[in-house]
Amino acid sequence: MQRLNASINLDRLKTLLDGVNRFGFDPPTGGYNRLGFSRADIECRSWFAGQMRDDGLTVWTDGALNVFGRYGPESGPCIMAGSHLDTVADGGAFDGSLGACVALECVRAMKEAGLEPATAIEVAATSEEEGRFGGMLGSQAITGALTRDWIDTAADASGHRLADVIAAQGLDPYAILGAARTGESIRAFLELHIEQGPVLESEGFSIGIADRVSGVCYLEMTLRGVANHSGTTPMHLRADAFAGLSELAQTIPALIAEDGTDQSRITIGHVRLSPNQPHTIPGTALFSVILRDTSETVMRALRKGFTDNAHAIAARQGLMLQTVERSWLPPVPLDRDLADRLEALAANAGLAACRMSSGAGHDAQTMQALCPSGLIFVPSRSGISHAPGEFSAWPDIEKGADLMLRALIDMSGAGA
Amino acid sequence: MQRLNASINLDRLKTLLDGVNRFGFDPPTGGYNRLGFSRADIECRSWFAGQMRDDGLTVWTDGALNVFGRYGPESGPCIMAGSHLDTVADGGAFDGSLGACVALECVRAMKEAGLEPATAIEVAATSEEEGRFGGMLGSQAITGALTRDWIDTAADASGHRLADVIAAQGLDPYAILGAARTGESIRAFLELHIEQGPVLESEGFSIGIADRVSGVCYLEMTLRGVANHSGTTPMHLRADAFAGLSELAQTIPALIAEDGTDQSRITIGHVRLSPNQPHTIPGTALFSVILRDTSETVMRALRKGFTDNAHAIAARQGLMLQTVERSWLPPVPLDRDLADRLEALAANAGLAACRMSSGAGHDAQTMQALCPSGLIFVPSRSGISHAPGEFSAWPDIEKGADLMLRALIDMSGAGA
Repeated sequence: MQRLNASINLDRLKTLLDGVNRFGFDPPTGGYNRLGFSRADIECRSWFAGQMRDDGLTVWTDGALNVFGRYGPESGPCIMAGSHLDTVADGGAFDGSLGACVALECVRAMKEAGLEPATAIEVAATSEEEGRFGGMLGSQAITGALTRDWIDTAADASGHRLADVIAAQGLDPYAILGAARTGESIRAFLELHIEQGPVLESEGFSIGIADRVSGVCYLEMTLRGVANHSGTTPMHLRADAFAGLSELAQTIPALIAEDGTDQSRITIGHVRLSPNQPHTIPGTALFSVILRDTSETVMRALRKGFTDNAHAIAARQGLMLQTVERSWLPPVPLDRDLADRLEALAANAGLAACRMSSGAGHDAQTMQALCPSGLIFVPSRSGISHAPGEFSAWPDIEKGADLMLRALIDMSGAGA
Repeated sequence: MQRLNASINLDRLKTLLDGVNRFGFDPPTGGYNRLGFSRADIECRSWFAGQMRDDGLTVWTDGALNVFGRYGPESGPCIMAGSHLDTVADGGAFDGSLGACVALECVRAMKEAGLEPATAIEVAATSEEEGRFGGMLGSQAITGALTRDWIDTAADASGHRLADVIAAQGLDPYAILGAARTGESIRAFLELHIEQGPVLESEGFSIGIADRVSGVCYLEMTLRGVANHSGTTPMHLRADAFAGLSELAQTIPALIAEDGTDQSRITIGHVRLSPNQPHTIPGTALFSVILRDTSETVMRALRKGFTDNAHAIAARQGLMLQTVERSWLPPVPLDRDLADRLEALAANAGLAACRMSSGAGHDAQTMQALCPSGLIFVPSRSGISHAPGEFSAWPDIEKGADLMLRALIDMSGAGA
C-alpha cells in the first residue's frame, strides 16, 4: 500500500458538509431544499466561496453561478474537481454537496501537508445540476453547450422562466454564456458522488469507478379502451386500458433477457388511469416508460421491443395506443484512460474499487465533452437518494475521498 | 301475439322524460346533475308530482322524498312500479328517470283506454338511489331498513352530513323513518331500467328480465416496495410495487376460468402509485379490486383466490401486502315467479326477452326484502352509462314499456 504524506481530515470534511447543509434544511421533512438559483442555493454558494477564500484559494463565481477556488499556479491549465451544491426538493444531505466538499477537503489536506501542485487544482461547486430548468446548467455552461435561445426559453415545472428567476436575483441571465471554458484550460475533471443506487452496498465495495453513464429514453404512452360499468360489462366485452398496461408491464423481464444487458433498466414509474374510479373499468391509461442502457444499440433494441409488445397487446385487447418520445439521451462513455488511472491508484492504495457504469446523470458526463472526466462513487445506504433518508457511511466516504486526494496529487504533479 | 286495448304513447313518454331532464342539465358537459337531495333533484320531484296530480292520481311525498301517485282503489294493497329520479354527477338522461316515466306512461295509457285496476297501481319516483350517502336511500326507507343511527352518521364523499343536507332544505331528516311501508301494502314492485351494460345489445335483444343481482366485494389493497432511482437500481435489486400489481392483474383471467362463472367480474379501476414519478421506481401501489358474481359461494372463492395470488406475488417480489375489505354485498335473488310471469307475458306478446342477471344495483333488489320484485331491462348503446353518452333506442324502450304495461294490467286485474 502506497503511503501518502497528506491525509483526509474526516471531522473537517463533516464540518464543511454540515456547513453546506445549514442552507435549505427543512426540519418538518428532514429534507434539503437548495433548488437551482433559489435564495438558499445562492446563499450557500456565497458561503462556500467564503470558505475557500479563508483557505487562501483564488475564488470567483462565473456567470452561471458556478463557484471556483484555485490552488496552485495562477495561470495555465487546471485539474478541476468538484460537484454541485444544488438539491432537488426535499433532497438528501449528500447528493452533489459531498463531492464539492471532498474536493475542497483534498486541497486543504494538500495545503496542510505542504503539497504544492505543479498544475493548478480548481475546486468547482457547480450550479443547477438537478435539472430544475431541464439540463445540467452549471456544467453545460462551462462546456459552452448553452445558447441564448435556450436561456430565453428555459423554464421550470412551475412555469418560472430561467431568465426571470436569474434577473430577480439582480443578475444577468446572459452572463451564463460567459461561463464557457476552453478544453485547453481544463486537463481533466474529477467528481466524487454518492452512487444513488444499491450496487456497491450489495457487492460489498466502498468505492466505485464509473466509466460510462447510461443513456435514457423517455416514452409517454397512452392506451385507450372504453370506460364502462364494472358490474354490467362482462369480461369478454371489455376494453380495459389497465389490463393492457399490466400485460405490457409483465413483458419487461423477458424483453431485457432477450434484447437487454445487465445494465438495462425499464421502469414504469408514473401511471394515470381515467376515470380512476373503483367501480368503472379504466378507459384510459397514461404512463411513463423509462428505458436505460449503457449501449445505444441496446437502447434502440429495447425501445423497438417494448413498442412492438405494446402494439401487439393493444391490438389483441382492442385498445388504441399512442406513443410520444419525450426524450432520448444517448449513453456517455467517460474517459477510459482516466478510469484506468483511478483504478490503478486505488489498487496501489489497497482500496478495493468496483468498475461500473452510472445509471444516473452527473456533471462528469457533461464535462467529458470538454475534457477527460472521471467519476468516483461511494455507496448509498439501501440505494436511497433524492430523499431525506439518503445516507453514505463515513468510513466509505473516507476511502472515496482518499482516492480523490491521491488522484489530485498524482495528476497535479504535486510535491512538497 | 296478444293484442292490448291500451298502448304506450311514445311521444308522450318522450315529452315526460324531457320534462324530467330539464332539471339539472349542464350544457357544457351534456350531463345531468340531480344528486340526491340537491335543489335540482327536489325541484324535479315536485314537478313530477305535479304531472301525476294533473293526471288525477292521488299524489304524496314520503319523509324520504319518494314521490307516489296512486291509481285505482284508495285503500288496500298496491302494485308499485317505478324507479329513481336522482342521477350521479354528470350522469345520463335515462338511468332511473326512464323507469319512473315509463311507470307513469303505463298508467296514462290505462286511463286513456279506460282500464280500471282492481288492485291499485302506485307509480313511485324513488329518491337517492345512486348512493350519494352510501346506500339506496329511498327504497331502503320504504323497506324500513334505515335507522336513526344511520341517519345521524351518513355523509357524502365531500363530508356533507345527510341530516344537514336535508335540514338545509327545511325538512326533518328523521322523517325518513316514517317512510317505512309494510309488506302487506305492496303486492309487488316492478322496475324498468336501462341495462347499463352491453349484453342485450351484443346478444340482439330489446328486453332483458333480470332474476338476480350480482353481489359486490370491494377490496382495497396496498403493495409496498421501495421507491428508488430508476437508473441506479438494477432490475434484480428492485422491490417495484407496480411490477407486483401488474403481475397480480394478469392472474385475473385464469382465476375466473378456474373459480368463477360467466357472471364473474373482477375489476381494478382505481390505482394510485407513490411517488408516481417517471424516474422513480414505484414504492407503493394502492388499488381497488371489485369482485362480483351472482353466487356468494363463487364470490368467496374469487376473494380467496385473488388474495392468495396477491400474497404469493408479494412474497416473491419482496413486497408488503395490506388488504382492507371495504364492503361485501351478497347477491340478491329477485322473485323467480315474478320473473317467470314477466317472461310469459313477453312471450305472449311476441317480445323476445333475455333472462339475465344484473351486474349493477337497483331499487328492485332493495324492495325484494319487502315484496316480490321484478326488473325489466332495455339495452344501453355500447353499454355506456353514468355518462352524458348514455343512450337507449326508442324502439327498444317502446318494447320494454309495452311489457311493463302488460304486467301492470295483468297484475292489477285491470278491466274496462
